[in-house]
Amino acid sequence: MEFKDIVRNRRAIRQYEPRPVPEDVIQELLEIIRFSVSAMNLQPWKIKVVSDQETKEKAFAATFGLEQIRVCSHALILCADVDYPSIIARLERAMAAAGVPADRRESTVAFATQLTGDMTPDQRLAWSREQVHIALGNAVNGAYSLGLGACPMTAFDPTVLGRALGLPETLMPTAIVTVGYAAEEGAPKVRHPVSDILI
Amino acid sequence: MEFKDIVRNRRAIRQYEPRPVPEDVIQELLEIIRFSVSAMNLQPWKIKVVSDQETKEKAFAATFGLEQIRVCSHALILCADVDYPSIIARLERAMAAAGVPADRRESTVAFATQLTGDMTPDQRLAWSREQVHIALGNAVNGAYSLGLGACPMTAFDPTVLGRALGLPETLMPTAIVTVGYAAEEGAPKVRHPVSDILI
Repeated sequence: MEFKDIVRNRRAIRQYEPRPVPEDVIQELLEIIRFSVSAMNLQPWKIKVVSDQETKEKAFAATFGLEQIRVCSHALILCADVDYPSIIARLERAMAAAGVPADRRESTVAFATQLTGDMTPDQRLAWSREQVHIALGNAVNGAYSLGLGACPMTAFDPTVLGRALGLPETLMPTAIVTVGYAAEEGAPKVRHPVSDILI
Repeated sequence: MEFKDIVRNRRAIRQYEPRPVPEDVIQELLEIIRFSVSAMNLQPWKIKVVSDQETKEKAFAATFGLEQIRVCSHALILCADVDYPSIIARLERAMAAAGVPADRRESTVAFATQLTGDMTPDQRLAWSREQVHIALGNAVNGAYSLGLGACPMTAFDPTVLGRALGLPETLMPTAIVTVGYAAEEGAPKVRHPVSDILI
């Protein structure tokens, strides 16, 4: 399927068949998400995959009544990571493993350390949350490309959800993407024509 | 090309052939971007397409020396829109044109008006910027799917850039995506394995 057809045809799907999505399909989806673009390639995200009913119910309590999280096969909780020292160290290791020369690694580490060090905690969180939204896009497009229905959600209480999932304070739940085999067509898309969004 | 191959194979491209991208291909790319997901479907973005050299040079001055904006064929300036009364009214019109029943339109308008009205100006801007990052993802994946090279950038002075482009204060430049026919392979991707980003 061409990408233009993916973005045009996918719809938010909130009702799912009872049969679970096989774990290898979820792994394919996670593969798609991990390739997302991010500023300075810092990939400041972590993902909690929820498939057991008890945890779904706990998450549901943080979502102001969004039923799809109770009836989905898997819920991917996309979290903004603000632990930049660890994020930068992890990227440095990955660059070294990929054979990136030491001088380029060092300049990347120095620049990222200074940039994120100069930010306030709120700015770091905002920055990480923005990057997570890129991953959200890959998640919904990726789910559709794999034959799954998906629904992105950002309206929930992140603190309540983080506590329910036992997340550390450096991880802020930013988006939930529920996935499963679609049991509805979903509502048709309403999007503005290009002429309405050009300046 | 399958979506998983798009996200795996695309690379940031900063050097471009001199030949311009035809306008109909740019229109195809804008079509892909306009279908991006957004919270409550508010689509709080506007796009300035820059293809003349004089404006590219003006934009360059706001980017701390990122050469790709001078040598690209087109630069898409993705802006966060914070004029929520207009955004909500536009969505209401689009829903009406699409045949969405009045009661659903009214509840959407009421909820969106209250939600965005309760936000501080900074919160509205942060929310719009997050949505623009979803569009950014569609832009870079879409460019690759159309045979173009692209590079996303978020490191620039938005105020300087907004003034250079004559943008109103309700539009905050949030991301630049330069596009053109690739004149380099681009650096190989360094991405963390799924095991490193799971919680």
